[in-house]
Amino acid sequence: METITARTNEKIKYAALLASSSSKRAEYGEFFLEGARLCSDAAQTGISVVRAFFTKDALTKYESYIAVIREKCDECYTVSADVAGKLSDTGSSQGVFCICKVRDTEGVSLKRNGRYIALENVQDPSNLGAVCRSCEALGIDGVIVSGGCDVYNPKALRAAMGSSLRINLITADNLPVFIKKANGAGMLTLASVPSSDARDIRSFDFKDGAIICVGNEGNGLTEETKSVCSSTVTIPMEGRAESLNASVAAAILAWELKR
Amino acid sequence: METITARTNEKIKYAALLASSSSKRAEYGEFFLEGARLCSDAAQTGISVVRAFFTKDALTKYESYIAVIREKCDECYTVSADVAGKLSDTGSSQGVFCICKVRDTEGVSLKRNGRYIALENVQDPSNLGAVCRSCEALGIDGVIVSGGCDVYNPKALRAAMGSSLRINLITADNLPVFIKKANGAGMLTLASVPSSDARDIRSFDFKDGAIICVGNEGNGLTEETKSVCSSTVTIPMEGRAESLNASVAAAILAWELKR
Repeated sequence: METITARTNEKIKYAALLASSSSKRAEYGEFFLEGARLCSDAAQTGISVVRAFFTKDALTKYESYIAVIREKCDECYTVSADVAGKLSDTGSSQGVFCICKVRDTEGVSLKRNGRYIALENVQDPSNLGAVCRSCEALGIDGVIVSGGCDVYNPKALRAAMGSSLRINLITADNLPVFIKKANGAGMLTLASVPSSDARDIRSFDFKDGAIICVGNEGNGLTEETKSVCSSTVTIPMEGRAESLNASVAAAILAWELKR
Repeated sequence: METITARTNEKIKYAALLASSSSKRAEYGEFFLEGARLCSDAAQTGISVVRAFFTKDALTKYESYIAVIREKCDECYTVSADVAGKLSDTGSSQGVFCICKVRDTEGVSLKRNGRYIALENVQDPSNLGAVCRSCEALGIDGVIVSGGCDVYNPKALRAAMGSSLRINLITADNLPVFIKKANGAGMLTLASVPSSDARDIRSFDFKDGAIICVGNEGNGLTEETKSVCSSTVTIPMEGRAESLNASVAAAILAWELKR
């Protein structure tokens, strides 16, 4: 393997750019992934690994993980500790990094009677990652992500612990349009709101499937999305808490959706 | 109000110390709180506010919140923007800070047929705060916190959005000892584990109350705590996800506990 020791190397600059910029990830259709387990999981899951970087220490310490990555990726480099420091987002880097292709979600269609969580403008990467993790663990059929949901943010990828690379991920450029289509196909579509006027999540029957929409941490769902959903839905609350954390709300909704 | 302009002022140094050090919070029985809404909520909830600091800008911008704080606290200061910068933990400080007394939880006893979540070594402040927020919203009777659960960490306070200052908070110096006592009082005590061998959370009847224990993000509950609980409990999982985020798991358990 060729060794890269300069922080100014074009490939390193490109990797750092993908790590830091959501718009560059969208422009190039690639994302940056860090961590021995995450990178090896990605390669194993069928994510296309374009390029990988390992420190010398990592080559021995994470030998088995790296073997999996090298089997799927032809372009591998060793990097100096200094270069790894530039790439790493964490305090304790494992020295394993790769660049992957964003999965193509065009043409992915909704399963008949499927159960889905749709996210609109969920901005906190930890929340986004946790929702992907919960949805995989609870057996949700797919996560629909729309504008402002940056699933490939490095923090979101870490919080998802690989789930976002395994779950059925569907991109909706315009959530209201997507919901209208689902309505047209006879699907139950629900807008979750922290309001006692909305119907209790426990009062629905999900045997024919549904899409439950969860909105932004501070502002909830957009008026447009709320207005196109078949109904509103809520998790009844007590006390003076005015809302639940977005990832917590999504998890309880997903749990009930699967019940 | 007296104005403080020096970062080296003893009161400012003390406030910054409480903000950064868990052991100092425990030693002095006081904690540091930031934010107009959080500080005013604390004062209103009956938390003892020892001392408060406001920037000049905050005095006009957050007038109504500050009025509540000043009504309950005799020792108020205005601080310069520079001093506020030293105190603030966030990028966009509101310039409202106070020092509060840790609530005395000695002698707080468990309610007959009460429903409780117990946390053991939950270390991520965002998770801790989210659990308090969920437990208040879902109407849990109290949160039992043991070793390593630093509820008064500024990030945890922020994530709880005031819930940790309102819920019934019970400190257990030694969780296994606490659980044994609860067992002796005839209470159902459950150790949550990510294992398919444990009983499904949906198979329990909680009408006589229960305590559900949730452990550390990476390592789960200690063997000692698991061994003293009446039973293990789990949230059934699918896919390749091996566990749920701790705050998500606690929320689903709390949701079922209240069902």
